Amino acid sequence: MVCDILIQANTILTQDPQRTVLENAGVAITGDTITAVGPWENLSRRYTAGQTLNLNHAMVMPGLINAHTHAAMSLLRGVADDLPLMEWLTKHIFPVEKHLSPEIVELGAMLACAEMTRLGTTSFCDMYLIEDATYRAVDRAGLRVLGGEGIFMFPSPAYADTERGFDLVRELHERWKDHPRIRQAVMPHAVYTTTPEILRRCLALSQELNMPLHIHLAETVTETEQCLAATGLRPVQYVHELGLLTPKTTIAHGVDLTEAEIDLLAGTGTVVAHNPESNMKLASGIANVPYMLQRGVPVSLGTDGAASNNALNMFTEMTSCALLHKVRCMDPTCAPAQAVLDMATLGGSRTMCMPDIGYIAPGMRADMVALDLRAPNLQPLHNPVSHVVYAATGAEVCMSMVGGEVLYNDGAFLKIDYPSLLKEVSALRSWVREKLS
Amino acid sequence: MVCDILIQANTILTQDPQRTVLENAGVAITGDTITAVGPWENLSRRYTAGQTLNLNHAMVMPGLINAHTHAAMSLLRGVADDLPLMEWLTKHIFPVEKHLSPEIVELGAMLACAEMTRLGTTSFCDMYLIEDATYRAVDRAGLRVLGGEGIFMFPSPAYADTERGFDLVRELHERWKDHPRIRQAVMPHAVYTTTPEILRRCLALSQELNMPLHIHLAETVTETEQCLAATGLRPVQYVHELGLLTPKTTIAHGVDLTEAEIDLLAGTGTVVAHNPESNMKLASGIANVPYMLQRGVPVSLGTDGAASNNALNMFTEMTSCALLHKVRCMDPTCAPAQAVLDMATLGGSRTMCMPDIGYIAPGMRADMVALDLRAPNLQPLHNPVSHVVYAATGAEVCMSMVGGEVLYNDGAFLKIDYPSLLKEVSALRSWVREKLS
Repeated sequence: MVCDILIQANTILTQDPQRTVLENAGVAITGDTITAVGPWENLSRRYTAGQTLNLNHAMVMPGLINAHTHAAMSLLRGVADDLPLMEWLTKHIFPVEKHLSPEIVELGAMLACAEMTRLGTTSFCDMYLIEDATYRAVDRAGLRVLGGEGIFMFPSPAYADTERGFDLVRELHERWKDHPRIRQAVMPHAVYTTTPEILRRCLALSQELNMPLHIHLAETVTETEQCLAATGLRPVQYVHELGLLTPKTTIAHGVDLTEAEIDLLAGTGTVVAHNPESNMKLASGIANVPYMLQRGVPVSLGTDGAASNNALNMFTEMTSCALLHKVRCMDPTCAPAQAVLDMATLGGSRTMCMPDIGYIAPGMRADMVALDLRAPNLQPLHNPVSHVVYAATGAEVCMSMVGGEVLYNDGAFLKIDYPSLLKEVSALRSWVREKLS
Repeated sequence: MVCDILIQANTILTQDPQRTVLENAGVAITGDTITAVGPWENLSRRYTAGQTLNLNHAMVMPGLINAHTHAAMSLLRGVADDLPLMEWLTKHIFPVEKHLSPEIVELGAMLACAEMTRLGTTSFCDMYLIEDATYRAVDRAGLRVLGGEGIFMFPSPAYADTERGFDLVRELHERWKDHPRIRQAVMPHAVYTTTPEILRRCLALSQELNMPLHIHLAETVTETEQCLAATGLRPVQYVHELGLLTPKTTIAHGVDLTEAEIDLLAGTGTVVAHNPESNMKLASGIANVPYMLQRGVPVSLGTDGAASNNALNMFTEMTSCALLHKVRCMDPTCAPAQAVLDMATLGGSRTMCMPDIGYIAPGMRADMVALDLRAPNLQPLHNPVSHVVYAATGAEVCMSMVGGEVLYNDGAFLKIDYPSLLKEVSALRSWVREKLS
């Protein structure tokens, strides 16, 4: 048989329903789809390929899925750390964001795409301002995105008022709906930046256009207190009464939740995008992920934006996730490696509402990355899942592929002009400093 | 003037007492010592060098100091995770360790040295069995070590009884005392694996031979309970009454400490080697580092062994440290980036009892690493310290140098035969599996 690409790998960590791990194995790809996975001996006999990728020194695994980020904020990486949330937001983030232009958002999103490609993330869920510019970056960079224009009750750099915001969502939907790698969600920013009416309209729009819904929810105790004061309800109950909790909804954070609220999420099939590093860095708290998993809540994993992380590195995010819950519960069996890897792959596909990504099997999209096993921190290879969660840095990634297209291979970006991107980002450093001063 | 090596760097993060950061700067090195640091324009005029390292794309910083590890345990990376401590130890670690030979320890330590060299650590403090073999690895790999044979009240693979253990410490001291990069400490394993008499003799020996002292202490609540039951004292008080707490002593972990005990450590000048990732992974708890820093306790940072981490990566350890204390204290100003970088450099020099490492200045040993700033996760460069602690993975290291000798440069190990090492480690994978089954 003929296929477009044949990958030969030392190890394949499929993350398929049986969590199959294969040694000396291969993957056949035609178009953007995986057509076969199995022992190399069989595959190499059965297939003739246009291109063969020799990854004998590497472990192939599904590309990781970053379930919550604000890609363009990569330009603000490190401008302000170790500060109280309100000081961080009002003195450092907002002053720069009010000057955002489409060009700047596209550049920031390109940098984010380069970082994710380099560090093994192939899909991400993105909420930001002027999201059209992020889609242009994603189109150029080759990644897969579920994006959304942040909807607020006040003007944003993308629209003069909320009404225009809704118009913009329709316009973006129309413009990008046929793109093979770009899908859109309706993304009300949070309960404290919207009104009940806005949230109802977001829900109606998501139903009308068959779009997932994504909202920051229950991130801090302060949010809960404000919501209680304004509505008499805690955030989860408030959005539930508005009908927002469905299997197509992802709530980002879910830190300040009671067990009863987690039970409610489980009952409605709502997905939680867990962002442990951002929650730690901003001292928001620790989401009760072990209880969510126990109750069957689908949990995905995200980095949040680079201004509060400060990397878009899903490998180190997995490490932080696994370690944090063990020490929080004082139980080393908590958040085992396999469960955490599941969040970063299968959980991510739930947030993205894309059941055809997240694992390696025939019929799935060909979104894969390879880790160079010659890295000293991945030796010896006793347990692939353990190495991915506890020992890899992400920089061992030597190949990234989305929909059958190789984006990064052996040290080189193949789709992005990376040297030019570096120059543009470097030039913007002084712009950011100027807006801050 | 003439020097051996002249480094030209984009940025130099010196970590000197003023925390100077220089752009377009250089370092001059003669023998194993830094002779000048300053603007490149001045240095390049003043010096003629045997070798010039062009690191225009990189940030040079002090090599990180891993203040607590068990290097040879790298061979056990990932053999057992997500297990209760006693099951982990008795069913997985001890069964392999009882078969240790000098050859195996040397191989494991070589792998650890390769990993540390690759990921920016130039010095480490190591407690293990058959430490002589670790010294041979360090001698070959070019790193700097403060090592010690673990002293137990029972036989070890290195000695038949504790008396022979003490003989061995003297013998090793004699054998290695003139090595420029190997220094030794007396290392009683822990209070629960020694007797008061053994601890007294360890102290006397450290005083006689002018060696630092290093002991696991206050790692878990269980240790405290056992110590209370056996001696009527909590661990810190117990070792204090034996005279062990001095400025030349490092206690590894210090998790289960009261504020009064931290005050006592501050008063005695004892150093705490903080191992956040190991403490999280084994669910031991969270050391009260913010209070230690507030009280002036010298705090260093360590990874612990790769069997409980599972990497020897001081960059990601810094990230974990900074994030963990913020969320524990629910205060984002806690454990700021500079304080954490200080632990991994200046704090480390306290544990090592080597005041001539830990920062870049004339007269200091030339132990430095360089981070490739072209990595997307290090762009844009608003704040070098923030990037080192929050955004770097360690794999951006493109040059590692110890005592003026370049160990790793531009993707290649210069002192280790890395391909051969990989083959040996790979061959040992089945040995480990066999001993486990």
